[in-house]
Amino acid sequence: MSVRFAILGVGRIGQVHGNAIASVKQAQLVAVSDPMEQAAIAMQTEHGCDIRSIDEIAEAGDVDAVVICTPTDTHADLIEKFCRAGKAVFCEKPIDLDLERVKSCLKVVEETNGTLMVGFQRRFDPDFAALKSTIDEGRIGDVEMVTLTSRDPGPPPSDYISRSGGIFRDMTIHDFDVARWLLGEDVETVQAAASVLVDPEIGALGDFDSVNVILRTVSGKQATITNSRRALYGYDQRIEVHGSKGSVSAENHHNARIEVADSEGYHRPALLDFFMSRYMTAYAAEIASFVDCVASSDAPQTTGRDGYLALVLAEAAVRSVEQQRVVKISEILN
Amino acid sequence: MSVRFAILGVGRIGQVHGNAIASVKQAQLVAVSDPMEQAAIAMQTEHGCDIRSIDEIAEAGDVDAVVICTPTDTHADLIEKFCRAGKAVFCEKPIDLDLERVKSCLKVVEETNGTLMVGFQRRFDPDFAALKSTIDEGRIGDVEMVTLTSRDPGPPPSDYISRSGGIFRDMTIHDFDVARWLLGEDVETVQAAASVLVDPEIGALGDFDSVNVILRTVSGKQATITNSRRALYGYDQRIEVHGSKGSVSAENHHNARIEVADSEGYHRPALLDFFMSRYMTAYAAEIASFVDCVASSDAPQTTGRDGYLALVLAEAAVRSVEQQRVVKISEILN
Amino acid sequence: MSVRFAILGVGRIGQVHGNAIASVKQAQLVAVSDPMEQAAIAMQTEHGCDIRSIDEIAEAGDVDAVVICTPTDTHADLIEKFCRAGKAVFCEKPIDLDLERVKSCLKVVEETNGTLMVGFQRRFDPDFAALKSTIDEGRIGDVEMVTLTSRDPGPPPSDYISRSGGIFRDMTIHDFDVARWLLGEDVETVQAAASVLVDPEIGALGDFDSVNVILRTVSGKQATITNSRRALYGYDQRIEVHGSKGSVSAENHHNARIEVADSEGYHRPALLDFFMSRYMTAYAAEIASFVDCVASSDAPQTTGRDGYLALVLAEAAVRSVEQQRVVKISEILN
Amino acid sequence: MSVRFAILGVGRIGQVHGNAIASVKQAQLVAVSDPMEQAAIAMQTEHGCDIRSIDEIAEAGDVDAVVICTPTDTHADLIEKFCRAGKAVFCEKPIDLDLERVKSCLKVVEETNGTLMVGFQRRFDPDFAALKSTIDEGRIGDVEMVTLTSRDPGPPPSDYISRSGGIFRDMTIHDFDVARWLLGEDVETVQAAASVLVDPEIGALGDFDSVNVILRTVSGKQATITNSRRALYGYDQRIEVHGSKGSVSAENHHNARIEVADSEGYHRPALLDFFMSRYMTAYAAEIASFVDCVASSDAPQTTGRDGYLALVLAEAAVRSVEQQRVVKISEILN
Repeated sequence: MSVRFAILGVGRIGQVHGNAIASVKQAQLVAVSDPMEQAAIAMQTEHGCDIRSIDEIAEAGDVDAVVICTPTDTHADLIEKFCRAGKAVFCEKPIDLDLERVKSCLKVVEETNGTLMVGFQRRFDPDFAALKSTIDEGRIGDVEMVTLTSRDPGPPPSDYISRSGGIFRDMTIHDFDVARWLLGEDVETVQAAASVLVDPEIGALGDFDSVNVILRTVSGKQATITNSRRALYGYDQRIEVHGSKGSVSAENHHNARIEVADSEGYHRPALLDFFMSRYMTAYAAEIASFVDCVASSDAPQTTGRDGYLALVLAEAAVRSVEQQRVVKISEILN
Repeated sequence: MSVRFAILGVGRIGQVHGNAIASVKQAQLVAVSDPMEQAAIAMQTEHGCDIRSIDEIAEAGDVDAVVICTPTDTHADLIEKFCRAGKAVFCEKPIDLDLERVKSCLKVVEETNGTLMVGFQRRFDPDFAALKSTIDEGRIGDVEMVTLTSRDPGPPPSDYISRSGGIFRDMTIHDFDVARWLLGEDVETVQAAASVLVDPEIGALGDFDSVNVILRTVSGKQATITNSRRALYGYDQRIEVHGSKGSVSAENHHNARIEVADSEGYHRPALLDFFMSRYMTAYAAEIASFVDCVASSDAPQTTGRDGYLALVLAEAAVRSVEQQRVVKISEILN
Repeated sequence: MSVRFAILGVGRIGQVHGNAIASVKQAQLVAVSDPMEQAAIAMQTEHGCDIRSIDEIAEAGDVDAVVICTPTDTHADLIEKFCRAGKAVFCEKPIDLDLERVKSCLKVVEETNGTLMVGFQRRFDPDFAALKSTIDEGRIGDVEMVTLTSRDPGPPPSDYISRSGGIFRDMTIHDFDVARWLLGEDVETVQAAASVLVDPEIGALGDFDSVNVILRTVSGKQATITNSRRALYGYDQRIEVHGSKGSVSAENHHNARIEVADSEGYHRPALLDFFMSRYMTAYAAEIASFVDCVASSDAPQTTGRDGYLALVLAEAAVRSVEQQRVVKISEILN
Repeated sequence: MSVRFAILGVGRIGQVHGNAIASVKQAQLVAVSDPMEQAAIAMQTEHGCDIRSIDEIAEAGDVDAVVICTPTDTHADLIEKFCRAGKAVFCEKPIDLDLERVKSCLKVVEETNGTLMVGFQRRFDPDFAALKSTIDEGRIGDVEMVTLTSRDPGPPPSDYISRSGGIFRDMTIHDFDVARWLLGEDVETVQAAASVLVDPEIGALGDFDSVNVILRTVSGKQATITNSRRALYGYDQRIEVHGSKGSVSAENHHNARIEVADSEGYHRPALLDFFMSRYMTAYAAEIASFVDCVASSDAPQTTGRDGYLALVLAEAAVRSVEQQRVVKISEILN
C-alpha cells in the first residue's frame, strides 16, 4: 500500500519533503497547498501533483497524510485540524513556541487518536544512526558524556531571527532532541551560557548567536552542546559520546573526499554548507520512517512528546541564562 | 527536451542504469529488452516501461538512445546495429575483447556518424571529478606520477573469470582509463607483473588475481596500478596524483563516517563493499552526461576511442607479463 | 652560562624534571633532595648529581634554581624559603590548595623580587604551542569558543584523591590554565556540572570523576571543559578553538601512526596512556623555557599569578556545583 | 657494560650518530676522527670526546666500536681495517657502489669473524616497527603486496648526485631494504621505469629523479616502490602492506598535529622536511640495537648481507631500465 501525501507550505523545507516523498517507493505526492501561487505551480510541474486549498486537502479522500511546512505559528492549529480530519500528520519542528499551546495541541492529538511525527531529521542521518546503533550494541558501555557541536555556516536574516523564538528554541532544539535520544535517560537540570559574538544585530533583537549548554540527567550523565551561528568552514555537525568502555564519534561531511598537499601543507575541502545538502539523506529516511509508521500504525520515532520535551529544555536554557542558575526541568514540566 | 531510453539487458548493471535514468530529469525509460522474461517484467513494474524485442527498439520512433548491458560478445554487433538505426548508444565496457573487432566496430560508428559513449563511470565519481578539477586548476603543477589502487572485496565466480578476458581486460581496464584521463598525455610503454595469490582456481583458468602495472608516457610521466581480487576490508578505490607543485588524493568510502574508540584502539567501519553502492552517484552522473551529449550533439566524455585505447593498454600488459619485458604501445597500435 | 639546578622531591614527576634538565644544553643538575633515600640514590646514579638536604641546597653557592616536586602542602613554604635564598624557583602546580596561602606566598615572591614559574606544561606541548601560534597569527580571527577535552586513562588511587583537593583543583586546573591562555581575556563567570560515574569510591570521598565547565569572559567569549577520570582508549587531550574566521584543533597522540584494515574495519592504536609519555616533549620545553628566563631575567611564561588564577577558577567551579548557580570570579578575587 | 664508540667522519650524518650515542645509556662516545678540524672540534665541545686519527682509533684499547660516516668510497677499506682491529663496525649504507668490492669486503668481515651492521635506519622507526609487528602477529594474514612511497622534499646538489651511484643505489636502496624486510621472502625479479621530471641537471648527469619499481618474489608476492626527488609538501615516507586478511599502513609525520579550518577548507601542516628530524628516533633506536648486539654478541638486525642484497636489487633496477626488460636477481648474484 502506498501512502498518499499532501504538503502544506512549499517553501524551502516543503520542497525538501517533496523530493523526500518522491524518493520513497511507498509514498506518493497527491497535492500541495501554498498561498504563494508560483511556489505551488513549481511543485505541480516538478511532481505532477494537484494544487489544492488546505480545506480541500482536509476533506480529500485521496490523501492519507500531510506534511506541515507552513510558518511556525500555524503548526498547532493545522496539527489539530488534520488530526480531526483523520490524516496522519508530519510536522516540522517546533509544534509551537509556547509550551502551553504545545500541550493543548498534543491533547487534541491524543483525543483524536492521531498520528503525529515531529521533524527531527538528525536521528535519521545514516552516520548518526550508525553511532546510535553502536551505543545500543553496548560497544562503548554505559553512556556518560555526550558532546554535541552544531555550527551554522552563517547567521540567518534578521527577520528570521525575530520570528524564531530565539537560538535555543530554533537552533539548539535539534541538539536538545539528539541529546535526549543519546542520553537515554530523563534530563534533570539545564544550565547555559549565551553571548553575542557573531552579529550585534542579533543582540539588538534580544537573541544570542553563541551558546553553550550543559544537561544533566537523574543519574548524573551529562551532555554539552556548543552552538554558533557562524562557521566559515561550513555546516559543522558533530557528535561524540563517551561511555564507560569507550567512545564513539561522527565526523563532518566535506564537499569532496579529496586532499591536496602543497608547500603550505595538506588541504581538504570545506564542509557542505547547507542543511539541505548535509541532511538530504536524513530527510528521505525520515519520510520513509513516517511512511512505515503510517502503513503499520506503529508509533513514530519522533513523537509530539519528543517535540514538547525538546522545547522544555529550550525553555530551561532561556531561564538559566536569564537567572544565571541551574534550572530544574521539574520547574517547567509542572 | 527529454531523451527517451531503451535498456538492452537488465541484469545487475542494467538495473543500475535503469535507476540512473530515473534519477535524471531530462531522461525517460521507454523500453527494456532481455531474454530473461522475469528480469524484464521486474523493470517494467519498477519503471513503468515497455518490454520490447531488440529489433522493435531499433525501429522504434519513440526511442532516442540505448544503453547496452548485454554480454560482452554482443556489444560490437549491437553498437553497429543501433548506430545504423540512428540511435545514440551508451555501451558498457568493453566494446569487445578482440582489438580488431573493436576497430571495425568503431569504423561503423564513424561511418554512420553515430554517437557512442563507453561506460567508464569512475570519471564521473564526484570525488574523482573533484580531484581532476584540482589538477586542471593547476594546484599541483604538472602531473608527474599517478598512483591507482583498486582492490575488489572478493574474487568473482570462476565462470565469470573464464569469460572476462583476464584481469587486465576486465578489472585493470578501469584503471587504464583513469590513468589515461589523469596523465593527460599518450602512454608510450607498459610493463606489468602478475601473480596468483588469492585463488588457485583463477590460476587454473590461466588468469591472475594480483597485478602491478607501470605506464610511462612520451615525456616520462608515470602511472602505477595495483590490483587485487581480494580486500577483506571492502572495495578499495584510491587515486593519488603527484605533481611538480604538490599532490592530490581521493579517499575511500566507508560504510559510515563514525569512529569508535575502546581499549583496543580507534575503529572505523569497513569500506562499502559493492561497486554499485560505491559508484551509485557516478553511474547517475555518467548517464546525465550522456543525456547532455545526446541533447546537445556534443562528443561524449568517454568515447569509443577511449574504450579502444584502454584495451590496447590491457593487451600490452598481457604481453609484458608473457614476454617479461617493457611493451611499446606502438607495437599494438600498428 | 649554564643554570645549575637542584630538584626537591624525586618521585615520578621529579624524575621527569631530571630527564628534562638532562635534555637541555644550558641546564645542569647539581643536587637532589628527598627523604626517600633510595629514590635520591637512583637519581644520583642516573645523573651523577649530589644528594643534599633542603637546607644545604638553600645555602649552596653552586645552585641557581630549584625545581619543587615535593607534596603539595610543602610547596608554599619551599617557594618562600628559596625565594628568600635568592634561588629561581620552578614549582609544580598547585602552589597550595588554599587561596589565601597562595596569596601570602606570592606576596613573599614579590617582596623578595623572586623568580617563580608554575608548572603548566601543556602550554609547552609543541602541538598546543603551534595551535596558539595559529591563533596569534590571526588565522582564525577573533577567538570565540574554546573547547577542551581532557580525560585520564583511569582514576588515581583513593589516597591520591583524598589529598588532591578535588577534581577541579587537581585535574581541571590544567584546563583552566589552558583556557585562560587561549581565551586571552579575563574570565568573568564560571559554571559547572559534576557527577560520579566512574568510581563510587571517588564519590564516597566527596569528589567527582566526570565534570563539565563553562567559562565566560567579560566580552562573552566562552570556553567549555570536559573531564573524565576514565577513558579506556588512553589519555585523551584535545583542544579546539573556534573563531570569527575559522577554527583550529589539536589531535590526540596515538601509540603509533599506523592503521590496520581487516574484515571488521579500520583500526588505529589506542592513545598514549600516561601523562609522562604524552607530555615528555612539553616537560623538556618547559624546563628549557625556565632556563631561558633564569638566564635572561625575563618573566616566566607561567607565573605565580597564573597558578593563582587557575585556582580561583577551580574554587569558582566548586562553588557553582555546590550552589547550583553561575559564579562570578569577582566574588572570589575580592 | 658500556660500549665505547668512535665516530669516523662527523659531517651531518656523523653528528646524527653522535646524538644517537649520547641518547643511549649503554653507549659512550670516546673519540671522533675527521680531516675537517673544525667539525671534529665541534663534536669534542658538544660531547666531551677526544679527537684522534683513524689509526689511533684502530689501535685504541678504550674503543669497542666504530661508526663509519666517511665518504662512500672509503667504507669498504675502513670496514676491513676495523674488523681486523677487532672493533665492532656500524657502517652507513652503502658498503660500496661496486658489488664485487662489497663481496670481497664481506669476505674479510667473515674471515675476521667481525661484527658489521649496515645503517638502514627505517627498520628502527617506531611506526614502521609497529607495522612490522602487526604483520608478524598475523593480523593481515599472508603478505601479498607491499607499496612503498618515498619522496624527498627536494633534489640534492649536483655534486652529490654525481657521486651518489644514481637514484636506485642512493635513494631507492632504503626502499629495497624495507621491501625485503616486509616481503619476508627472496626477491626473484625486478623491473623499473625511470624518468627525469624534476631537474634536467640530474638527467644531464645520467641519473633519474622519478622512478617506479616492481619487485616479485619466488612465490609471486609483489612490492612497488615510488620515488621522487621532489615533494613540495615535505619528506613523504609511507608504507602500505596488503595481505590475505587485511592491510596495514604507516602515516606520514606532519610538522604539528593540528588542523585549521577556514573558508578555504581544512588545513594541516606540511610534513617534516628533513630526514634527520623525520628519523631522529629511528637513528637512536638503531644505535641502541647495535649496542645491544655488541654487548650480547648477537647478530645485528641489518647485516652486511642485507647491505649487499639491497645493492643487488639496485643493480637489477638499473639493468631493467637500460634493457627495458624484467631482470632476474640470479643474473646478478651469480
